[in-house]
Order: sequence, then structure tokens, then C-alpha cells
Amino acid sequence: MSRDRALANDPCPIARAVDVVGDRWTLHILKHANVGLTRFDQFKRELGIADNILSARLTRLVDRGLLVKTPYSGTGRTRQEYRLTQAGADLLPVLHALATWGESHTVGEGQLGPIEFVHTDCGTALGADNNCRTCGRRVACEEESWVRPWLPQVVTPVAAPMKVVS
Amino acid sequence: MSRDRALANDPCPIARAVDVVGDRWTLHILKHANVGLTRFDQFKRELGIADNILSARLTRLVDRGLLVKTPYSGTGRTRQEYRLTQAGADLLPVLHALATWGESHTVGEGQLGPIEFVHTDCGTALGADNNCRTCGRRVACEEESWVRPWLPQVVTPVAAPMKVVS
Repeated sequence: MSRDRALANDPCPIARAVDVVGDRWTLHILKHANVGLTRFDQFKRELGIADNILSARLTRLVDRGLLVKTPYSGTGRTRQEYRLTQAGADLLPVLHALATWGESHTVGEGQLGPIEFVHTDCGTALGADNNCRTCGRRVACEEESWVRPWLPQVVTPVAAPMKVVS
Repeated sequence: MSRDRALANDPCPIARAVDVVGDRWTLHILKHANVGLTRFDQFKRELGIADNILSARLTRLVDRGLLVKTPYSGTGRTRQEYRLTQAGADLLPVLHALATWGESHTVGEGQLGPIEFVHTDCGTALGADNNCRTCGRRVACEEESWVRPWLPQVVTPVAAPMKVVS
């Protein structure tokens, strides 16, 4: 069995998760998908990477069930977009944890401060386990918004996962 | 500015965190460092990767301040080991989140069940934000142990970070 194949079947769930998402572009794609990007050209513009690299990552995320390809009609011919599945949306706590670590241990340009993860309905900053202390309950991913101080006029709702009928 | 350089300075703390740890071998190394591995040969045996790949990852983790190289005396000549810094230890919530996701969305061999993250002193499973409901307080990383059902006789304490005097 190859090392990669072994990690995909490892008894350790961390090893198996890393096998799926332990890649910089994959994590960047999932971050942007969580705040609403769905189209190849949007990801390409945001990440600034080559078409073949982006295409390989998106295809793998579809194959592994974190994104689903679905048609949309714009101007002209029908195109495909990439929507989060429940498995993709469930990575949100990983993104939260990376945000906390990045805020504590790295320095960005301009020192603009942390991302605030808030309950969309009431604006309260979410606590551990996504609890909203104003509403006294745990908030689902699609009830959360991100306030990013480098985008000062924007409160971005987290994308709702697409229900996949199997 | 190169794309990589831009990500290291991105205003988004998630992008900056991914720039440091968004790599499969880096995440595997940090997982094993958190449960006590410190030596090149230990990481090599556990990960099964080539010396040059492991060496490059360890060097980068030292350069980025997540591991620190420190001498130890065994039999024969003095060697170097790699110990977690506070920045490396602070990645524990990322590993917790990956464990939860991996347990929900991937399947390993034998279906042996999740890792239990417990308070070492009392054995209570830790809740969100590492709260121990038995002791009524938040537990630091070095007070936590991992119970992994595929290692049934072992309760592994999480490594304490090394204090680095700068």
C-alpha cells in the first residue's frame, strides 16, 4: 500500500482529514467557498493561481465530496459552479481555529485585526462551539457571518451547504 | 511580490496560518509533536517519508517558530531534538477540529472510533474551548491527554511547549 493510500485509511481521524484537506490551495479554496465564492473565475482571481492547479484542486474536492458541481445560467451558455456540501461546510471550525492561530502567531500587512465571527441575526460575536450568548443557542454555519476589517463595509454571510440528493 | 510572499503578509489571518501550516507533512509532524515525538528518527519512522522531505519540513517549522531545536544526550554523541514552542502547541485547536471533521466525514480501517481528548488529571472528556466540566475550568494544552482506540493501552499526554528565551 502506498503511503498516501495508507493515510487515507489511517485509524487516526486527524491523519485522514489531513489526507483530504492538508494542502494550501485546498484550504484557501475552502475558505473562499465558505464566504460565497462558487465559480472557477472567482477562485482564480482571488487565489491568483494557474488554471491547471485550481482545476486539479476543485476536481479533487468534488471527488472527495466537499464541493458539488452544479449548473448555473448566466449570460450565454450554462456553466458549472462549485457549491459546498455539508462535508465542506463542516470544515468551518477548522477555519475558525486557523484564524485564531494566525491572528496570534503571524503578522499581516497593516495589522487590521482579527476576523469577527458573528451570529448574522443579532451581530453577537460567537463563542466556543459557535454559541451565541445573546440567543442562548448554538448557531449553524449558515447563520454565521464574517466581519473582516480589511473589507470594512462588508458583513459576509457564510454559505449554506447544498443539499445533495444521492 | 510573489503569490507565496503575498499570502504570508495577507490581512486575513486564515491565509497567513495556511501559509505556515497548509501542508500535509507539516500537519502530520505537528500532530506527532503534540503527542510527544521529538526526534528525527521518530518522525521518519512514524511518517514513512524521505529524509530530505522531513528535513525540509522540520527546518521550516523551526524557522517559522513552531518548533525549536535543542540538544539531548543519549548514548554516544549529543544529538538535536525538535520540541514544540508555544506557537506550535497553540495549534492544538486546529488538530481538534481536524479530528472532529475526519471522524464525521472519512472512514478509516477497522472503524475504531474517535480520539478522546481528556483532562489528564481527572479523565473527563474535554468540551468546546477545552473546558473540563468536572473541574469547572479551561484546561491548558499540557494538561490534556489523547486516548486513541487503536492504541488501547495508552493514554498519551500532550507535550508541554518549551519555553524559548529570546
